[in-house]
Amino acid sequence: MNIVDLIIKKRDGFKLTKEEIEFFIKGVSDDSLPDYQISAMLMAMLLRGMDDEETSVLTLTMANSGDTFDLSPVKGIKVDKHSTGGVADTTTLVLAPLVASLGIPVVKMSGRGLGFSGGTLDKLESIPGFDISVSYDDAIKFANESNIVVMSQTANLTPADKKLYALRDVTGTVDSIPLIIGSIMSKKIAAGADAIVLDVKCGSGAFMQNIESARKLALGMQKIGESLGRRVIAVISSMDQPLGNYIGNSLEVIEAIEVLKGNVKGDLLEVVLTLGANMVVSAGKAETDEEARSMLLKNIENGEGLKKFRQFVLQQGGTDKIVDDYSILPISSVKKAIIAKESGYIWSMDTAEIGKASIATGAGRVQKTDPLDLGAGIAMKVRLGDYIEKGGLLAEVFAATEEKTEAAAKLIADAIVIKEEPNEPSKLILDIIK
Amino acid sequence: MNIVDLIIKKRDGFKLTKEEIEFFIKGVSDDSLPDYQISAMLMAMLLRGMDDEETSVLTLTMANSGDTFDLSPVKGIKVDKHSTGGVADTTTLVLAPLVASLGIPVVKMSGRGLGFSGGTLDKLESIPGFDISVSYDDAIKFANESNIVVMSQTANLTPADKKLYALRDVTGTVDSIPLIIGSIMSKKIAAGADAIVLDVKCGSGAFMQNIESARKLALGMQKIGESLGRRVIAVISSMDQPLGNYIGNSLEVIEAIEVLKGNVKGDLLEVVLTLGANMVVSAGKAETDEEARSMLLKNIENGEGLKKFRQFVLQQGGTDKIVDDYSILPISSVKKAIIAKESGYIWSMDTAEIGKASIATGAGRVQKTDPLDLGAGIAMKVRLGDYIEKGGLLAEVFAATEEKTEAAAKLIADAIVIKEEPNEPSKLILDIIK
Repeated sequence: MNIVDLIIKKRDGFKLTKEEIEFFIKGVSDDSLPDYQISAMLMAMLLRGMDDEETSVLTLTMANSGDTFDLSPVKGIKVDKHSTGGVADTTTLVLAPLVASLGIPVVKMSGRGLGFSGGTLDKLESIPGFDISVSYDDAIKFANESNIVVMSQTANLTPADKKLYALRDVTGTVDSIPLIIGSIMSKKIAAGADAIVLDVKCGSGAFMQNIESARKLALGMQKIGESLGRRVIAVISSMDQPLGNYIGNSLEVIEAIEVLKGNVKGDLLEVVLTLGANMVVSAGKAETDEEARSMLLKNIENGEGLKKFRQFVLQQGGTDKIVDDYSILPISSVKKAIIAKESGYIWSMDTAEIGKASIATGAGRVQKTDPLDLGAGIAMKVRLGDYIEKGGLLAEVFAATEEKTEAAAKLIADAIVIKEEPNEPSKLILDIIK
Repeated sequence: MNIVDLIIKKRDGFKLTKEEIEFFIKGVSDDSLPDYQISAMLMAMLLRGMDDEETSVLTLTMANSGDTFDLSPVKGIKVDKHSTGGVADTTTLVLAPLVASLGIPVVKMSGRGLGFSGGTLDKLESIPGFDISVSYDDAIKFANESNIVVMSQTANLTPADKKLYALRDVTGTVDSIPLIIGSIMSKKIAAGADAIVLDVKCGSGAFMQNIESARKLALGMQKIGESLGRRVIAVISSMDQPLGNYIGNSLEVIEAIEVLKGNVKGDLLEVVLTLGANMVVSAGKAETDEEARSMLLKNIENGEGLKKFRQFVLQQGGTDKIVDDYSILPISSVKKAIIAKESGYIWSMDTAEIGKASIATGAGRVQKTDPLDLGAGIAMKVRLGDYIEKGGLLAEVFAATEEKTEAAAKLIADAIVIKEEPNEPSKLILDIIK
């Protein structure tokens, strides 16, 4: 088989066979194909597309390109959750302990933040002592003891995806539904869970900016996941404003604890309950979403979720004193308030710009190697549809220097549009694909 | 300017500005862009296309990416000729001295053979002593003294094309009319001639396999060349069978001399006269094609063309004894006859396969670094439409070993289709675009 022939075949709009896709991914994984041939193929795949069968083969081949995580020693139906990424998307920190508190094993490999979306690993690392590197044996042990582990990807998980993702990022080949499905689902398949609940974000702070493309991606991921023997449910949720009110690392940990304590309601909790109910039903612990939902709510009220959070933090080397004393968490010292320049209704937010403001504070990264300020971030004080008086507080920014707070404040002020007439609040849960 | 933004712009079907194309070509030339970004852009350009304005800017920018060859010290209107490549395309060896013998300066940079098509430089090197490396000063001197020089490209001519061509070859991005135009015409523009006559080959032994794509390429090259201030005429000629009857290096030199001696007529001479007449008219040495044609024919009859060939060979260090004694040229010692297995008319020839047979003899290359056997090749004994008896001679093969003659003979036998009914002979000159 010759890679140039395969590039030309895809370039000319033909379907690649299983053997041809395997040949390509093998060449990516073992470094036998040069980057320039891979990127030409990626561009041809993006522009010519791939059908479900090709995408399914691509996904499985990528999943098997490195080690796979064997969760069979963990009892029960293992459920995983994945978000396509957004701003103040603190769900995992609340959802994982809450679902685990119902006796469902949640073994989750998470990523670091990049671009405008935050990463669960970065947030967890703001907890003093918390270790995101967990060995396979420890992961199995933790899962069996407490039903919860949230960790970084093992080194050799889906090496083909690592290589392809890095190349796609610098060759204009990110925006391809089949390639996105292959990237996300190969990792989820390799991570070993039986059921996967996907949170597909849609809106100004998400990769998918409209419901059509979000639905296309959600349906595609579900179809491919199910073709590979996993139960997959996809929730499409709005990212037209930050999901939670806190954006950052330690700031999001605080908000997660507040939700688990029952002190904070709102959109973040609603998304947690929607995703969580689907996880609970997938795991066979409830018959209906309603039943699952009340089980989850109960475990907030009775403190079981928070208790599981403490166990989880302690298990991975962190201190659970943070639950009682937020001052143990790093918080950047320079603060700046962003004030409304006019009265009116919060009409819209450019959520990606707010994500970039978070990067400007030091809480996020543009490049993988950028250092993070775990104590930096933003506390949003308004939501879409709220009425605000001129001079009212829109948000507060935390950073290490005044320069950074100034830069972030400017971005936030520009991102929030205030109008005289009230705005119809947008739906939070846009669709659920089962 | 950011290369990823430009790749995405072209990927999404938008037109690139002059500045954007210049940025891209500059990055190609100075090695600041990595190959994987260049190949992604090339695939996007191939699949999304480029309009005339983009192609013109691309061509000029590539032409100016390195040194340009200043022909102003050469008196008169300088004419150049380019063939898109075929099998037994011996035209330059006849055409250049014949046109030069009419007092028209022909300064031609040629290439080496690759794939199934032969290269003028390789053929010339089969002449003992012939030197294809000519300095700028010598080229100008030769052109002023004798009106003829045929040489290899100077080292720093169109470095952007060299880089792009090498990448296109291995990334499935060769077949793009705008990229082909950019590659060919940038070299012709940089080579400095005032008028350019293009020989666009069309058929089973050419890159363009049908008249529509050949015409598209021809029209495109003409339009772009004229937009950059050159007089351009494109002849579209058939490559449904080898143009001459000899395929190889020294073998083609022999055939060229035979044509100049007036001993060989047929398709090769006809293409030479058609291209030559257009060169003569372009150079202002004749009013009409008919007049130019008879001037060329006269210089075969009176021996002026052959005299110019001798002067040309001597000028570049070769021996003109080859004109009188072909045995001075290398001819491979192992010979094999290919015999017709049935009686009938020569219905068709897969000319590319015959080109591959030439490679099998050792006369051609697959990779740039492959060594050549200058004495190897094929002597075709039939042309399309000929009637042949079973047992009649189809071709003779020359190579260094029996293994090679066998391999080539098999390819040739498979490439020639004999049928009972006679075949309408195809037209030789398919179109002339002025």
